[in-house]
Amino acid sequence: MSAAADTDFETVVMKFGGSTLSEPEQVREVARRLVAARERGMRVVGTITAMGRTTDSLLELARRVSSSPDPRELDMLLSTGERTACALVAMAVHDLGHEAVSFTGSQAGILTDAVYTKAKIREITPVRVLQALDDEKIVLVAGFQGFSRDTMDVTTLGRGGTDATAVALAAALGASCEIYSDVPGIFTADPGLVPEARRLPLLSYEEMLELASSGAGVLMLRAVELARAHDVPIHTRSTLSDDTGTVVRSGEGMEQALVTAVTHSLDEVVFALYGLPDEPGSVAAVFGAVAREHVNVDTILQNVPHKTAALSFSVSANDVSAARRAVESAQESLGAFRVEEVDGLGKVSLVGAGMRSHPGVAAKMFQTLADEAVSVRLISTSPIKISCMIDRPDVERAVRAMHLAFALEEPSR
Amino acid sequence: MSAAADTDFETVVMKFGGSTLSEPEQVREVARRLVAARERGMRVVGTITAMGRTTDSLLELARRVSSSPDPRELDMLLSTGERTACALVAMAVHDLGHEAVSFTGSQAGILTDAVYTKAKIREITPVRVLQALDDEKIVLVAGFQGFSRDTMDVTTLGRGGTDATAVALAAALGASCEIYSDVPGIFTADPGLVPEARRLPLLSYEEMLELASSGAGVLMLRAVELARAHDVPIHTRSTLSDDTGTVVRSGEGMEQALVTAVTHSLDEVVFALYGLPDEPGSVAAVFGAVAREHVNVDTILQNVPHKTAALSFSVSANDVSAARRAVESAQESLGAFRVEEVDGLGKVSLVGAGMRSHPGVAAKMFQTLADEAVSVRLISTSPIKISCMIDRPDVERAVRAMHLAFALEEPSR
Repeated sequence: MSAAADTDFETVVMKFGGSTLSEPEQVREVARRLVAARERGMRVVGTITAMGRTTDSLLELARRVSSSPDPRELDMLLSTGERTACALVAMAVHDLGHEAVSFTGSQAGILTDAVYTKAKIREITPVRVLQALDDEKIVLVAGFQGFSRDTMDVTTLGRGGTDATAVALAAALGASCEIYSDVPGIFTADPGLVPEARRLPLLSYEEMLELASSGAGVLMLRAVELARAHDVPIHTRSTLSDDTGTVVRSGEGMEQALVTAVTHSLDEVVFALYGLPDEPGSVAAVFGAVAREHVNVDTILQNVPHKTAALSFSVSANDVSAARRAVESAQESLGAFRVEEVDGLGKVSLVGAGMRSHPGVAAKMFQTLADEAVSVRLISTSPIKISCMIDRPDVERAVRAMHLAFALEEPSR
Repeated sequence: MSAAADTDFETVVMKFGGSTLSEPEQVREVARRLVAARERGMRVVGTITAMGRTTDSLLELARRVSSSPDPRELDMLLSTGERTACALVAMAVHDLGHEAVSFTGSQAGILTDAVYTKAKIREITPVRVLQALDDEKIVLVAGFQGFSRDTMDVTTLGRGGTDATAVALAAALGASCEIYSDVPGIFTADPGLVPEARRLPLLSYEEMLELASSGAGVLMLRAVELARAHDVPIHTRSTLSDDTGTVVRSGEGMEQALVTAVTHSLDEVVFALYGLPDEPGSVAAVFGAVAREHVNVDTILQNVPHKTAALSFSVSANDVSAARRAVESAQESLGAFRVEEVDGLGKVSLVGAGMRSHPGVAAKMFQTLADEAVSVRLISTSPIKISCMIDRPDVERAVRAMHLAFALEEPSR
């Protein structure tokens, strides 16, 4: 069922990540995969991230020459990593006797806004990509980057940007999208924590969105959002095997499991704001300031709706200083309120499209955590997800207990 | 006299090479030099090569993924090194409290032909550079690269390309040009071979052309040619000191030394062609083929003008395989002729603008070599240079003897 996703398309966008590209031999392996798809008759576009730890090394260099590197220059710097990797893969394809050409984000027509280091794709005009495909070339597109027509400068797309590049290109080209990593798909839980975790052959966009937003690192949230918006099927696979992986696509007509997976994350920080003016617009003022700092807020909770509201939100650990700046700016505009920052937290989440119509799932989840003596700090829910913020040392135990309680090791579809 | 070259200009292009940029601390030092010039009131453009051994590492990566890397992809790959370096220097300038912006060759308007890996600059349209200078920014331009409007692709300029970038930018901006390296100027001979070698404070373009073409590695031939064509004074200086270095500029009215310097090179290969058809066009056919392979020929000699001509030319060692291809292609079009390849050679040259009117210089040079028992394999002359191809093991001895014989350690101007 999963492998069938490819065959409806004549063009495929194949994305390869950094950890699959640390060594020249891996570059040649990526080239072999691209050539194999070409030899099956597909029109092939590869999109590639920087090799191995290139991006981290460049960031380290930047920090050594400047205490706060200029974002425009950071994008100029970081965008070189993907160009290098793409040019090398193109050379390796040539070496296998096939034609290939590498394009920068700009040459591939990936137009973005001008928010350096966190640019969003606005539009793709893949004129040169289409021409090269018509010329029977394998096309390599540098991931993670685009070009702003406002500033005429290179931009980068931020974390997970190459997944977004792949999905956006697939949408623009009417192609399917294969995301390769060193993980063979999406599992019912992190196999490192739960040995019985089972690969999920098929997921809906909605389930994948919840999984991605609650810690399943294989696919980035924004790529899944893009895929859903443009109805691009994503096939996540491993470079280490030919296993079928996990296909994510529109979920109509599929049997829906009660609970699909349990996910977790370890780097959560909660900001609790007390004494916020209880007036229209004060919450908007806070999250306006947060958005201006380009912080992705995970969970937002407002409780105790008395005269002064108490508001909590969580961010990932690497957004903490930006979130702090946002809160300070909100304090300036709204007047003083008290802020508490709670770190040392993790999050466990239960995701399942079938959960919508089964309120008992939440109760069973809380009971499981209680049996394990895990204190729940914060709860948030969506129609197909329940998340609990808990102390970080409890996360591993909680994940195992929930995987067992919901019998996720047993195939349900 | 030499330092005065700067003060006639309000804009300066400062070029920094790879060996001056191996470490983050050196990036900060380059930034400090740029800022110092800005604080003296200059409009400042820096052009930078890749850091340290970056280019060699990228070439090594290319060789490990492909036996003969595609030239277009090689340019895509290699051009990233200069972008990285420029972005880092721009960040370091910001860190010193000044505004800076880095541009790729394409953004700086450096338009080239489409000969990948050896592109020539056709035109510079530095619209963004001028705008940024008007905005009081220090501008960094990635050296060694340009953009072809024919292919819409990145090109690289080949060996010494960043010197060419610097001079061409200086010409386009009406600026002076400072070339920084780890060598404090041009000397009467290689100070590594001749301890008495003396720094030359001032040289004419013609002398510098001959020096560059005969092995003085500090400035590349093409950069000097560009400088002469556009009358751009070049100031070569060291990043390791504030010494005045050597100024190269138009030589009218300057006192001309009989002999300025002795230079040498160690990587010469001579191709001797025997039995070439003695008819109009056969020499042109040979060098047409050589030019199509983009081989820079150093010396060309035709002797024994009998029925069949004997023709010799020398190339640097890293052009040998391309030269071989050219000769084979000439054999196809002209019919069989015999080819001999002689390696293990070096070259010593005597350069001096005053030599024109003193034929005795050649005789003294040959006598000096004879006294040292050095066999001369090939001789070529220009109005201001005499070059002798000799066995490589004799080069060092010959250079020392000639420096002594012409008393080059004594200031003549």
